[in-house]
Amino acid sequence: MDLNKLLRPKSIAVVGATDKPGFGLSTCTNLLKSGMREHVYFVHPKRTEVLGKECYRCIADIPERIDMCVLIVNKKVVPQALAEAAECGCKAAVVYASGYGETGDKESESELRLLCQKLDMAVMGVNCAGFINNLDDIFAFGMLVPGEARKGNVAVISQSGKICLNMMQVTYMNFSYLISSGNSTCIRIEDYLEYLIQDRETKVIGLYMEGIKDPVKFKEVLKQAALVRKPVVILKVGKTSKGSALAASHTGSLAGSDKAFDAVAKKFGVIRVDDIEELVQMCHMLSVLPMIPENTGLSAMCLSGGETGVCADTGTLLGLQYPDLAPETMDKLKALLPDYATPANPLDMSATLAHDGEKYAAVIQAIMEDPSIGMVLCGQTILPKHGPKDVIWPMSDGMVIAAGRKKKPVAVMSFFNSSRDESVREKLEGAGVPILPATGCGFKLLKYLMDFVKYDPKEHILDLAVMEVQKKEKVRTALSEHESKRELAAAGVPVPPEAIVSSPEELKEFAKTMTFPAVAKIASPDILHKSDVGGVKLNLMDAGQVETAYREIMESVKGKCPDAKIDGVLLQSMLPQGVEMIIGVNADPQFGPMILCGLGGVFVEVFKDVSLYPAPLNKQEAREMIGSLKGCKLLTGYRGSKPCDVDALAEFIVKISEYAVAHKETLKELDINPLFVYPQGEGAALADALIIKEQ
Amino acid sequence: MDLNKLLRPKSIAVVGATDKPGFGLSTCTNLLKSGMREHVYFVHPKRTEVLGKECYRCIADIPERIDMCVLIVNKKVVPQALAEAAECGCKAAVVYASGYGETGDKESESELRLLCQKLDMAVMGVNCAGFINNLDDIFAFGMLVPGEARKGNVAVISQSGKICLNMMQVTYMNFSYLISSGNSTCIRIEDYLEYLIQDRETKVIGLYMEGIKDPVKFKEVLKQAALVRKPVVILKVGKTSKGSALAASHTGSLAGSDKAFDAVAKKFGVIRVDDIEELVQMCHMLSVLPMIPENTGLSAMCLSGGETGVCADTGTLLGLQYPDLAPETMDKLKALLPDYATPANPLDMSATLAHDGEKYAAVIQAIMEDPSIGMVLCGQTILPKHGPKDVIWPMSDGMVIAAGRKKKPVAVMSFFNSSRDESVREKLEGAGVPILPATGCGFKLLKYLMDFVKYDPKEHILDLAVMEVQKKEKVRTALSEHESKRELAAAGVPVPPEAIVSSPEELKEFAKTMTFPAVAKIASPDILHKSDVGGVKLNLMDAGQVETAYREIMESVKGKCPDAKIDGVLLQSMLPQGVEMIIGVNADPQFGPMILCGLGGVFVEVFKDVSLYPAPLNKQEAREMIGSLKGCKLLTGYRGSKPCDVDALAEFIVKISEYAVAHKETLKELDINPLFVYPQGEGAALADALIIKEQ
Repeated sequence: MDLNKLLRPKSIAVVGATDKPGFGLSTCTNLLKSGMREHVYFVHPKRTEVLGKECYRCIADIPERIDMCVLIVNKKVVPQALAEAAECGCKAAVVYASGYGETGDKESESELRLLCQKLDMAVMGVNCAGFINNLDDIFAFGMLVPGEARKGNVAVISQSGKICLNMMQVTYMNFSYLISSGNSTCIRIEDYLEYLIQDRETKVIGLYMEGIKDPVKFKEVLKQAALVRKPVVILKVGKTSKGSALAASHTGSLAGSDKAFDAVAKKFGVIRVDDIEELVQMCHMLSVLPMIPENTGLSAMCLSGGETGVCADTGTLLGLQYPDLAPETMDKLKALLPDYATPANPLDMSATLAHDGEKYAAVIQAIMEDPSIGMVLCGQTILPKHGPKDVIWPMSDGMVIAAGRKKKPVAVMSFFNSSRDESVREKLEGAGVPILPATGCGFKLLKYLMDFVKYDPKEHILDLAVMEVQKKEKVRTALSEHESKRELAAAGVPVPPEAIVSSPEELKEFAKTMTFPAVAKIASPDILHKSDVGGVKLNLMDAGQVETAYREIMESVKGKCPDAKIDGVLLQSMLPQGVEMIIGVNADPQFGPMILCGLGGVFVEVFKDVSLYPAPLNKQEAREMIGSLKGCKLLTGYRGSKPCDVDALAEFIVKISEYAVAHKETLKELDINPLFVYPQGEGAALADALIIKEQ
Repeated sequence: MDLNKLLRPKSIAVVGATDKPGFGLSTCTNLLKSGMREHVYFVHPKRTEVLGKECYRCIADIPERIDMCVLIVNKKVVPQALAEAAECGCKAAVVYASGYGETGDKESESELRLLCQKLDMAVMGVNCAGFINNLDDIFAFGMLVPGEARKGNVAVISQSGKICLNMMQVTYMNFSYLISSGNSTCIRIEDYLEYLIQDRETKVIGLYMEGIKDPVKFKEVLKQAALVRKPVVILKVGKTSKGSALAASHTGSLAGSDKAFDAVAKKFGVIRVDDIEELVQMCHMLSVLPMIPENTGLSAMCLSGGETGVCADTGTLLGLQYPDLAPETMDKLKALLPDYATPANPLDMSATLAHDGEKYAAVIQAIMEDPSIGMVLCGQTILPKHGPKDVIWPMSDGMVIAAGRKKKPVAVMSFFNSSRDESVREKLEGAGVPILPATGCGFKLLKYLMDFVKYDPKEHILDLAVMEVQKKEKVRTALSEHESKRELAAAGVPVPPEAIVSSPEELKEFAKTMTFPAVAKIASPDILHKSDVGGVKLNLMDAGQVETAYREIMESVKGKCPDAKIDGVLLQSMLPQGVEMIIGVNADPQFGPMILCGLGGVFVEVFKDVSLYPAPLNKQEAREMIGSLKGCKLLTGYRGSKPCDVDALAEFIVKISEYAVAHKETLKELDINPLFVYPQGEGAALADALIIKEQ
């Protein structure tokens, strides 16, 4: 299917053109404002004109070949209308009709998808509001929009048409495309994303979504975006149960586990934002900035101590870095600033420099030249009535001068949100200096930006182990501890030796390989409480004691449970105590196995201190998982305790990830609890494991 | 000193009136716009007129008695100018001059403070920018302000004049007073706060501060505010070291520990915000809302699933509650909403109702009548061009109708910040419906509001144990474990019995009171490593074993350390293991003893999971401290573990608070680590204690 025919058509037919208020009238009105209005045709079986424009009875009657049609028709008529259009050579359509998967009628939606494939038509919708293509001046959109195309470099894909409309209403934002994907019956979010990653006019992609449908395609396009470093900013609702309940009722897509989505975003360097304002402002900042910072060092310069204090607190609490300035920078600043100002980062310049653009530029320049600084923030609230006559106008001159030297990015940090003087905004943003929203949101955007700066696609395996087969009827089986360990060992995961022996001869053979002390336990699917029947012996110090234990266990069990099926006796070495970890795998229905790691016991149970990351992962990614635990110090050493063998732990996590990938079609859950991690150089040892399969 | 003469003067003299640009010209210009301009007099020794207005040589020459003077004079001249003004009966002054404590000259500032007291003059400043009193139309402010007094119910006190100016520039906010306190040399923030708490026109007080100077006054006024439930919204910078370094360099006030300030805010129900935008918007919301919600149940109604999902996620993640609606409410909503909308909270109404104000009001009304709902949020982004002709105008009609019934507060939640149509804002806010900022900030404001709703002054001891004497030369002493425990026991803190015995007779006597097993340790200030010299015996099961241990210890020590000073042998019962807690006290230099509680060991060391609260505290407050620990479940029971005796723990914390208050002048630090907390009904026991005194 050809998305160019859908998004960049040379001719458009509006089927069901009308002047009755609603999506139809709005679409007709919007398209008449389009630069290509001469290639827009209205179609209606019973009308000869709509809004003063000639109306054709059917697409076949139109003298020009039609690339794309907008269907303003009832759900029932959609298949027929698509077929008719296809017959005329039309290769794309926008379908507004609703009442499909989102209200429970999944069957009609599947049928429609198959039809689109059969007709080889690229169809947007169903249950969508169309799209805007500002590059070619096309407004195929179901809600009334302003007439001028604000051509820019931000592309938006949104399941919700309302959110496209919202974004258009931010008057200073300029877009390449705004696409309302609706139910994504035929063309999916993943497809639009791929198209826009390849689109040269699009610098940043903003995405509002409730879920995705094609995880394989999704990971492939995210990989492309990561490799070309094109920022993808995603707002996905459904973080909380209240939110995901809504997401599920609103579209037909599977919401997926939100934490898994977060982990996937981290793997691919996707910027995940928390609300619409952040989506808007993050896209805007990336759209205006002429370059991404080279490093994460931030500097801020404000007009008062109060503003400087707010910048210091808000930035630092979010984990942003204000590096100390180099001595040379300090000297330069001393020469530029009034006596009573103290050079520092963040910098309270005092208000004096506000009146001297050249000097203000020199201060920015001096800070820019500091190698530890990646980006300069100028604290300044632009108000509705600022303009060339205002005392702070010279500051904006200074920013424009400094930004013009293109050394490092410069942005304006505002202290409160207010209407901004559009002339100041145009001047600054035209020069590549974005005006950020007030500090609460503004510093969050900078945190997202710096995380994007830090992200290096080369450090990550840009892949997911998505399941190939989605079975409907599934049978779940839990493996025993011994079976689970055997399976892991077979897959190359280091498992301390253990065996089920069922004769004194087997026992002797295995005892040669054991380390002591050892433990012996009855192995029987019928005996749950092993100790109660004399089925457990601990602290066995040599092969002789093991033999005695074997005999005693067998006798005791035969006496107490004569009918139990006995597999033998399980022999294990007793592991020395180490730092207890939990390593787990959970199969996400969309993204495949997700690897979990956490500190054992109360840390997991009460503090929920775990990190989650998609398989497959490499050692660097495993190290990041470990490093992101709040209790990481328990592993790296605190208050004189010895650092643990984090390297062995990371290696172990990679092995588990490899196992999970190899078994992705059947592995439902894996729990290694505990894994003992020993001091540096002494490795880690798996003490217990449980595998649950589903096939 | 009479703040009425300062803030509500009947006549004003501007000493040093000038037309040279700067604070002087701005003040003259501002005051000439004032409604009381006929009682404003300019004074300059060498001028006969300024800005076309007659200029007097000195205050004595002015025909009217002057209540307040604004001094636009150099630091050197200030004392003389104040004295001259006082001689003419002037009782108040605003002093702009700088170069005092904020740049290191603390002496001049102390002298000035004494002079003001001697002259009985209420002086604002030094290093301030004056004030605005909109009630009486007085603009005694050093930066140019718009002419019209926007009389309202928000009062602002700010150390920084820039932040006053910022707040004035928010065009839709209306103020009673805006006070720039500067260095607070004479009249302090605490004094202004007291004045404004008593001021009937002021409904909400916004405060920007870097620190306070008079903690006794501060706690008294916060208590007044808490009792009358007048909201005090504070932005205090200095949360981080970067921020507090700035706060310290910018004013002469002691920053104090930021966490202690947070705890004080919690005790008195102060709303502490994180940045200027939150300060502005929180004050604005409280200013517009006609009432505080009766309960913390929130409801939200939006036009699309996307917006509803954002409300659900953002609110829930901040800990806000969307209660499920009652069946009767669901029935009412079913009748009002279109078929395809599902009644729920938050509610996706779909866009249909946007066109029907009456019906929209009925939906709000139905939700308002639900007893679990305290406040209704209407999701709707007001844009610059909305107005009576816009399709969403009926929604604002609906809100006005519903709010007019004054059942419960209604507010508009915006999805992005943008210029707002002022006519829509006036209509809604005039009806008591505030327009909140976009969700990120907007929901934080609601969280602050709901915390304020939850706060009940009756549940708190509205007091602080501020130290009475601030000594300069301090001597620090650490008490031994035994001395520390004795001191605590003497103060009524439950301490397990222990004694230092120095003869077999003393031993026999004490052994009668002991529980076993017991432990015996050598007690000597000269022996640090007691075990190395045979100075420790554990697991003593009866009095006989204790006697033997005593003899062995004494012999061994005498042999190995013949020169050590021996106090005797310390006898203690060995405590059973319980959940380990740390209870501590840290004397804050401003706010007095702060009580700390946390889970022991790694929970404190690695997770920093502690709560801090000012003494004196009651059992309810102690329970809140315990409840706010992240690891609280370790005490209340998880996964089948028995719940601990939280009641005994709370009781213990109260005892420690009582001890700390009684010893506030000398107690520097107290560390009880561990306190063992036992299962419900079995109490808690102090195992080790360390007291550090400073006098």
